[in-house]
Amino acid sequence: MTTTNYAKLNCPVAKSLSILGDQWTILIVRDALSGLSRFSEYRDSLGISRNLLSRRLQHLCDEGILERQPIPGSKRYAYLPTAKCRDLQSIVLTMAAWGNKWCEEEGLTKVECRDRQSGNLVKIGFIDTKTKQAVSQKDLTIVRRQAR
Amino acid sequence: MTTTNYAKLNCPVAKSLSILGDQWTILIVRDALSGLSRFSEYRDSLGISRNLLSRRLQHLCDEGILERQPIPGSKRYAYLPTAKCRDLQSIVLTMAAWGNKWCEEEGLTKVECRDRQSGNLVKIGFIDTKTKQAVSQKDLTIVRRQAR
Repeated sequence: MTTTNYAKLNCPVAKSLSILGDQWTILIVRDALSGLSRFSEYRDSLGISRNLLSRRLQHLCDEGILERQPIPGSKRYAYLPTAKCRDLQSIVLTMAAWGNKWCEEEGLTKVECRDRQSGNLVKIGFIDTKTKQAVSQKDLTIVRRQAR
Repeated sequence: MTTTNYAKLNCPVAKSLSILGDQWTILIVRDALSGLSRFSEYRDSLGISRNLLSRRLQHLCDEGILERQPIPGSKRYAYLPTAKCRDLQSIVLTMAAWGNKWCEEEGLTKVECRDRQSGNLVKIGFIDTKTKQAVSQKDLTIVRRQAR
């Protein structure tokens, strides 16, 4: 993974990008979060070369986003999502929502989130941490502050 | 912008990635959403070459994410966010939140979202579209369905 200049920018968006790096990385995360774990499963899903996949998986393990665990009774390994990876679910789902809305294309699979219990449609949005109510994007203000 | 294989994958995440492409693109979107509009402002913010910035801005205009408008009384142009760009705010903010949480680094600026009126802290989360209540990530189920 090449280190790019933007990693030096003092911004958490740039830092995230410097780790999530190229686009395959996000797609591997997407697959890990949907339950894939074996090398061959990722390869079949993405159709990328062994070499490329191998490097991306290593990168994700180095960053603590995936965890490599031996599969009992096999010489192979499973690549499982960590908490750091599960926290990427909202990035993957906001990308899916944006793609659903703006990339109109015939036959493109739609990704929907639903509440497991009620079956109600769930969307990504902004939530007031005190009132637990949804907040509209136009009512947001973004504050940058220097960490202590 | 090179066309990569993943653009062919039938998935809205892959489609989004094929447009958002390299990481500078997201950082330009971040800047456009925070109010920058002139070429020189983007360049000063990102510290990238004129040539690279020029190509990225053109790409974003081609994709309908930025709109190029003449600046009155000047020979220069403003690059302004469209609705398609404003819809990327949640991607930028989820990346910021993830970076805030997982990329601990001394002096790294934190990005906070607050409600403009109440000043309450706002986080990104999952909202039930019927009840308008927050839904926990563990209660989600992701459904892929073929578009009609």
